[in-house]
Amino acid sequence: MSTDNTLATDREAAVTAEVLAAFAETADPRLREVIGSLVEHLHAFARDIRLTESEWAAAIEFLTRAGHITDSRRQEFILLSDVLGLSMLTVAINEPQAPGATEATVFGPFFVDDAPEIPLDGDIAQGASGVACYVSGEVRSVTGEPIPGARIEVWEADDDGFYDVQYPDGRTAGRGWLSSGTDGEYRFWSVLPAPYPIPHDGPVGDLLTATGRGPMRPAHLHFMVTAPGFRKLITHIFLAEDPYLACDAVFGVKDSLVVDVSWHHDTAAPDGSHPQGDWTSIVFDLVLAPHGDQ
Amino acid sequence: MSTDNTLATDREAAVTAEVLAAFAETADPRLREVIGSLVEHLHAFARDIRLTESEWAAAIEFLTRAGHITDSRRQEFILLSDVLGLSMLTVAINEPQAPGATEATVFGPFFVDDAPEIPLDGDIAQGASGVACYVSGEVRSVTGEPIPGARIEVWEADDDGFYDVQYPDGRTAGRGWLSSGTDGEYRFWSVLPAPYPIPHDGPVGDLLTATGRGPMRPAHLHFMVTAPGFRKLITHIFLAEDPYLACDAVFGVKDSLVVDVSWHHDTAAPDGSHPQGDWTSIVFDLVLAPHGDQ
Repeated sequence: MSTDNTLATDREAAVTAEVLAAFAETADPRLREVIGSLVEHLHAFARDIRLTESEWAAAIEFLTRAGHITDSRRQEFILLSDVLGLSMLTVAINEPQAPGATEATVFGPFFVDDAPEIPLDGDIAQGASGVACYVSGEVRSVTGEPIPGARIEVWEADDDGFYDVQYPDGRTAGRGWLSSGTDGEYRFWSVLPAPYPIPHDGPVGDLLTATGRGPMRPAHLHFMVTAPGFRKLITHIFLAEDPYLACDAVFGVKDSLVVDVSWHHDTAAPDGSHPQGDWTSIVFDLVLAPHGDQ
Repeated sequence: MSTDNTLATDREAAVTAEVLAAFAETADPRLREVIGSLVEHLHAFARDIRLTESEWAAAIEFLTRAGHITDSRRQEFILLSDVLGLSMLTVAINEPQAPGATEATVFGPFFVDDAPEIPLDGDIAQGASGVACYVSGEVRSVTGEPIPGARIEVWEADDDGFYDVQYPDGRTAGRGWLSSGTDGEYRFWSVLPAPYPIPHDGPVGDLLTATGRGPMRPAHLHFMVTAPGFRKLITHIFLAEDPYLACDAVFGVKDSLVVDVSWHHDTAAPDGSHPQGDWTSIVFDLVLAPHGDQ
């Protein structure tokens, strides 16, 4: 058996060597590095687990299903990256080093780039269901200077756990963008986000089921903040006491991103309005690392 | 810097540990092993190359394009596996150990499972262009016993380098299956296969271009042979002196699978027919490993 095993090892190593040689002439040095490393790690994975031909075929089928369920409103490959932790690892690899900068988390598959602009104190809910929530804070640098004119994109699921793009009626709700004011301040109305399952009627859902994992994400509000001279920030805020904080299907939770929610009843809001019944508020500052920081 | 690097390393290791823990409860032991190894290798790849967020996004876009170009007649994920050498590595990992068995090679994306049955001496070409080629040999065990009644699936590209499924007209040509005769013999007419490029108008073609690789495969005829009590054989035969033997885009060539082609002109064929003009012949024995051998 040891002779056979040595032969098998040699035969497998020869395949990997041949493939690496074929990619060795790649002109772009970064692409050469990436593809070489991909081949080494992909082949090591297959060798380590002794990949069978039926498992290989199942993987092809899995990727095919993921491709076919993906469209302009559904992105199964991002979900796959998310549930395998690759998305959060990429965030960690690229995390700014500047102390005090707001931590990043996953981008997710639900951003759209033509959300409506709203003014300070405007409402991104646009009919999304849920308890009204007033979100405010300051955009500033890690050295404490306010950042006026930052572009703040926000998006969230409604109280039923769905983003607007998950409804078939083409609605735009629960998303928008605003600019920070002259002192870096921002504030807008939204709805209190709810926990929800990631879309799990496709191959990624089947993977979660087969591995005994749940599809739930804790409630969160997405932010993407850009300002000249600063590093783009992609993050969420999560809500304290959410039951899913410890088992986020996409591993996105960081302690620094968990915020307290204040509940109010029949009181005036900071913008002078007087909402009917219950409303909530959240305060969260957005601290940007300098451009080029990693 | 060393402190920052240590922090980054710790942060990245924490992500991987969290993901592995989430998959640790997988009930099926094989799936637990596979998914755990996948996470370890995938994360090691991302860490090793310091994957950037724009590269991550490019990978998502690549997979999305691969998914959308894949349909019942085009399989971009198999092409991807092929050009990364994963397909041939999987073949190597699962290669039978029995000395003398015919070596295996890649399955490829062009098999269809409802090809027509043909008799011994029948013609699989069914109108496919190319010089007539009479292929014959014996199906036998590694200990030399003939194997009657083996199912032999064959498929090939025509003289223009296309499989029937690559034409939009729904034709069936250049494919069929037959049973070996009472002494294990098989023989059929086909056409001499031609070198051809793998489909390269999609993301896999872009990858080959970006890495300075060509899309060509040497000419070959596919076989898949099954018989009760024996291990399924998936292989090709290649033609001696083919200019692409040394640079097969999918790394499928093995010396033992390269055969000589005999050319004939206006002579009687072994089946008693008398083809007009040039025709060719190939002799190749198919030696099956015992069932369960790996």
